[in-house]
Amino acid sequence: MADFASPTPSPLAFQRAAIAGVGLIGGSVALGLRERGLARRVIGYDASMDVLREAEALGVVDEVQAAPGEWLRECDLVVLAAPMGALGPLAHELAPFLSPDALVTDVGSVKAGIAAELDALGVRGFVPGHPMAGSERGGVTHARAALLENAVWVLTPTEYTSLTALSRARQLVEALGAAPVVMPPEAHDSLVATVSHLPYLVSLALTHLVARDERLSLLAAGGFRDLTRVASGDPRMSRDMVVENREALREALARFRRGLERLEADLERPGDLLAAAAEGKRTRDSLPVVRRSLLPPRHDLVVAMPDRPNQIGAVTQALGEAGVNIKDIEVLAIREEGGALRLGLETAADVARAAALLRGAGYEVRGRG
Amino acid sequence: MADFASPTPSPLAFQRAAIAGVGLIGGSVALGLRERGLARRVIGYDASMDVLREAEALGVVDEVQAAPGEWLRECDLVVLAAPMGALGPLAHELAPFLSPDALVTDVGSVKAGIAAELDALGVRGFVPGHPMAGSERGGVTHARAALLENAVWVLTPTEYTSLTALSRARQLVEALGAAPVVMPPEAHDSLVATVSHLPYLVSLALTHLVARDERLSLLAAGGFRDLTRVASGDPRMSRDMVVENREALREALARFRRGLERLEADLERPGDLLAAAAEGKRTRDSLPVVRRSLLPPRHDLVVAMPDRPNQIGAVTQALGEAGVNIKDIEVLAIREEGGALRLGLETAADVARAAALLRGAGYEVRGRG
Repeated sequence: MADFASPTPSPLAFQRAAIAGVGLIGGSVALGLRERGLARRVIGYDASMDVLREAEALGVVDEVQAAPGEWLRECDLVVLAAPMGALGPLAHELAPFLSPDALVTDVGSVKAGIAAELDALGVRGFVPGHPMAGSERGGVTHARAALLENAVWVLTPTEYTSLTALSRARQLVEALGAAPVVMPPEAHDSLVATVSHLPYLVSLALTHLVARDERLSLLAAGGFRDLTRVASGDPRMSRDMVVENREALREALARFRRGLERLEADLERPGDLLAAAAEGKRTRDSLPVVRRSLLPPRHDLVVAMPDRPNQIGAVTQALGEAGVNIKDIEVLAIREEGGALRLGLETAADVARAAALLRGAGYEVRGRG
Repeated sequence: MADFASPTPSPLAFQRAAIAGVGLIGGSVALGLRERGLARRVIGYDASMDVLREAEALGVVDEVQAAPGEWLRECDLVVLAAPMGALGPLAHELAPFLSPDALVTDVGSVKAGIAAELDALGVRGFVPGHPMAGSERGGVTHARAALLENAVWVLTPTEYTSLTALSRARQLVEALGAAPVVMPPEAHDSLVATVSHLPYLVSLALTHLVARDERLSLLAAGGFRDLTRVASGDPRMSRDMVVENREALREALARFRRGLERLEADLERPGDLLAAAAEGKRTRDSLPVVRRSLLPPRHDLVVAMPDRPNQIGAVTQALGEAGVNIKDIEVLAIREEGGALRLGLETAADVARAAALLRGAGYEVRGRG
């Protein structure tokens, strides 16, 4: 029988996994592989010796390598996890040493470029990937296997991707606890241009409108803050993403501009504008709730809050006394239904325990995740 | 000595105050006038008999009137608090009955139109106003004097506004616990076009891009949700606001478009784009925190959270045990500095007490508001 410390390798198990780029995502993949017994040995490679030392000290990897070399030939899984701008050069650096039987994947947030690059390099076992997970705090220090759990992980095979490689990549993603979604690289890039890169640029343009105007920032209330939050992201990472995806982004920008022009024209047709507003509300209200948080990941519990004093204190105190660790907390404004509190807990078991406790105290609760 | 139940009227005190339109804002003004002893008698007028009955039953007003009439001549304060579209007709309806000595104000969120209309009607005691307060939940049922406390309340005198009327309006706003900010109607409209109406239209256009596309809504994570939240607002109220302010909104749209075009051009100049991204981050990070919440108003305390388990529980528990009522709570992601918790408390005294308590327990805290 397997115990927690040395889990039995799953049927998928890799002999030697190389994580090239041991940051937040690479480190989280390494931890997932180790904790779930998916690889016998996990080897970290990074351009920074400091990062490698930290990864080793934190037990994120079994061993480290400071340069590509023959050691790579024995790896049957290679994950390219460098920042966007460094992925291409990294692939070129490693390609000469890759085993033709290795499953190779990457975690870049734009896919068409890197997919074409690896196709051109003739890396046959390559399956481009994009785990849609992140955290406000980067670096291997904040890596956690749980970061990838329940994350949407897009795989974008090209015409050169073998079905065997794609199938193994899918299994890997599932074994790490994430949800694989398969689509062509161009489709992925067009989608993230619309839901991520366009919103970033829009947010930046809105933010620039209030720069150096005190009266504007005085009147800028909740709505404006919501729309400009992503402009507060890391400038270099944000810049690299939008530049890498500029082609798809330009198309998204063109669609957005046409939509905005239509709305501007509707200012003279109040009936049409009302219909557009109602359609927008319906669409927005039906979006699934997925929030990238400071403290990923979470097991959520939503507690309806009766309109009585100090309900936040009562709920957090009851859980604190029962030893339930509250990782995140959010006041939800739910129209017409009064307020609710969303609690981010550590484990599904915590959610079950907290739910039972609060139900017993007369609260209406709903678990999520 | 005055007790809480029957406060001594302040020197500002009005004899008879008329609240025309007894919804969330009108009702909150009525309650503020009564609770703070600013008017001897508060009279509610509304187009809906049901609303009037509810306002009376809830004790929001002292008496109700179902139609404008001679009773208005005796009112020395008249607050027009109907929804945007109904303000003009309401003013025309009441104007023949207004005393020339009455202070008349309104609470509309766009100012140039109503200001011109009342000037044309010759209502000399009129001071256009816009209390920047709101709630997810509308209607007189949710009216509270506290809704207006600490709110920015813009007053927009015109060339016809007398200094006496402006000065009384300022005193009224301050007596209600809000913060008066004086500027011309056109300046106000241009500012709210930029920080409120443009963001709404942008949010609506973004939302429309994902309508009826399941893959898009699957990939739409936190950032996209932030940017489209305001599209979830009441369609009719949102439509009325942007239509009423369409002139200023068109100018804001033009400025926004130019900014966005510059950013698009910068996709070919990565160095310039990085500078723009860094400038956006600086601006966004320095915006004052003003959040329209389910539970207004607040006295804020920000607590730096050390990276140890169950800090949320520890902080809320300590305050709960000390009897400090936590009205609102928010996890703040502060890059590079770790996390922080924003606590919304009931009074400034609570903030001081909680700060002392938490400092004593080794936390770094900062009070606000």
